[in-house]
Amino acid sequence: MPTLVPALSVPSAGAPFERIELTRRDLRPDDVRIAIRYAGICHSDIHQVRQEWGRTTYPITPGHEIVGEVVEVGSEVTRHAVGDRVGVGCFVDACLECAACKDGEEQFCERGVVGTYAATGYDGERTQGGYSGQIVVRDHFVVRIPDAFSDDQLAAVTPLLCAGITTYSPLKRFNVGPGTRVGVIGLGGLGHVGVKIAAAMGARVTVFSRTDSKAADGLAMGATDHVATAEKGALRAKANSYDLLLNTVGDGIDLNGHLATLDRGGVMINVGAPSDQLSFGAFSLIGFRRQMVGSLVGGLPETQEMLDFCAEHGITATVEVIGADDVDAYYDKIVAGDVRYRAVIDTATFSG
Amino acid sequence: MPTLVPALSVPSAGAPFERIELTRRDLRPDDVRIAIRYAGICHSDIHQVRQEWGRTTYPITPGHEIVGEVVEVGSEVTRHAVGDRVGVGCFVDACLECAACKDGEEQFCERGVVGTYAATGYDGERTQGGYSGQIVVRDHFVVRIPDAFSDDQLAAVTPLLCAGITTYSPLKRFNVGPGTRVGVIGLGGLGHVGVKIAAAMGARVTVFSRTDSKAADGLAMGATDHVATAEKGALRAKANSYDLLLNTVGDGIDLNGHLATLDRGGVMINVGAPSDQLSFGAFSLIGFRRQMVGSLVGGLPETQEMLDFCAEHGITATVEVIGADDVDAYYDKIVAGDVRYRAVIDTATFSG
Repeated sequence: MPTLVPALSVPSAGAPFERIELTRRDLRPDDVRIAIRYAGICHSDIHQVRQEWGRTTYPITPGHEIVGEVVEVGSEVTRHAVGDRVGVGCFVDACLECAACKDGEEQFCERGVVGTYAATGYDGERTQGGYSGQIVVRDHFVVRIPDAFSDDQLAAVTPLLCAGITTYSPLKRFNVGPGTRVGVIGLGGLGHVGVKIAAAMGARVTVFSRTDSKAADGLAMGATDHVATAEKGALRAKANSYDLLLNTVGDGIDLNGHLATLDRGGVMINVGAPSDQLSFGAFSLIGFRRQMVGSLVGGLPETQEMLDFCAEHGITATVEVIGADDVDAYYDKIVAGDVRYRAVIDTATFSG
Repeated sequence: MPTLVPALSVPSAGAPFERIELTRRDLRPDDVRIAIRYAGICHSDIHQVRQEWGRTTYPITPGHEIVGEVVEVGSEVTRHAVGDRVGVGCFVDACLECAACKDGEEQFCERGVVGTYAATGYDGERTQGGYSGQIVVRDHFVVRIPDAFSDDQLAAVTPLLCAGITTYSPLKRFNVGPGTRVGVIGLGGLGHVGVKIAAAMGARVTVFSRTDSKAADGLAMGATDHVATAEKGALRAKANSYDLLLNTVGDGIDLNGHLATLDRGGVMINVGAPSDQLSFGAFSLIGFRRQMVGSLVGGLPETQEMLDFCAEHGITATVEVIGADDVDAYYDKIVAGDVRYRAVIDTATFSG
């Protein structure tokens, strides 16, 4: 018999969150039931709840940064046991048979990866995400929280399931290491984690932010330099100075100006998801054979690797822990750039 | 005493070419004097003569695809001797001391590379290009024409100095080899050489052209497939099918549609030089961690390597050899896409 669990849900376009009871399926042989402790708020939750990426199917319970404890496992599950601290990220199913899945890049599954929420599963059921008391997930898509993280750190670990892997994956793919000159554009939910990870990899990190308001925070997170892009000539002063730029900002940045800060052969990684088109002059790339690349989270093996890396280096997100009643207000704060630096919902407040 | 040589020159904006006498400097110790046999017409010559890339300084003698014979060498020249068949490409000087130069990427010289024409040399003199009877060039910037090419092939070898290196360099950098799935967008001066080189590297090559009018030519050059992009659904039918796209077309192509033909991790190389902005949706990159990269010709070591590769594989451009009086008309034909596939000026016609 399916289980009813408390959750937050937006019933229709423009409505605020309301408390509901969400149905979670009975366990299949390879399923894990997780009692959720924390759910992070990703900017993409807001994009989808507010239909900024096209039409949304309501009701919607977002949340793809999930940390909790295993409370029940299916008969064939061997990787996880009751009591384990685990995490779930942006997707909960994939075919596991195609070339992408076999390469550990389930996010690019050729059958189509199943998002943690706002997706239709292979069983035809609509998925609902982590702003809820429990979730039932196929074991392959559940990662282990390393022992080095204390229980007190779990809220701050939660954003790593999306913001962590989104930044770790491309930084690793493009061989960031000691001495690599990295610029992180935007010090928000993604950017602040990117700064910490790049610094832990040994990079010299510059934060590009509109003003100086977050300069001290960025330096405390491991950056060695801060550039206030709103100051005239600020980008020009950094021409040809970086090997890699991690662009976490969606709309409204000067792409030509930022590209010009890349040295010969440099790479701009786009992990933000703007609704606008990316638009820049061809010579911004051709001039120094620069590269503009996209990156989309990471697969399960790399997500586990990222968590292990963060545990080894003591990296967590910088978070504000909020309650169920705060979510609507925090959506506005996040859009305004007023959260430092990621909001995480404490699910203990669902039954309050 | 400086030498006067016959040349073609555009005296002012909008004027046609006229025959002039151009001054070539006396040899410096490291200079080579070349009697030019052929000069190719690159689309960028047209962009500059017609001020489509910003303001041009007139008079201008274009031409950066140059093949000829050494007729005199400076006192310190050891790499070339009188009688050698040689080539000159897109640039004629660089500092040779910076990191880029030391990496053999003189085109990205930190002091500033000196273009073969329309540039100001380190001596303060304006450079003038290959539509002329002679050119004097610093020996480092002169490459050897491999013996495997017969004298009869020299006209068709000429475009390799720009179109050849422009396509060879990124194909090699991104490891094109046996079985690589390559799409070449546009079968023009650059594209047709790209098809031949990619096929010689072992790739399976698809030509993307607006219509089927060049389909047979592309297949004869080594392509295995042709897609007429003006046909509805043509790009969609090739979704996720290529490892690499060589985009030789400037303006007016459907970038989102073409990017969607790249498989996971695929790379679009932009070697065309549109005056428009490159513009596409962020998800076109993020979706399958695709890459959009720029490439700009290649350095001297790689230019020699490219010529040796082409000689070994019997690759030359497909050319129409024209006379001094044909250049204006051919500029229009090139813009209209009516030249198959590169026009090369026979300098024997200068004195006619």
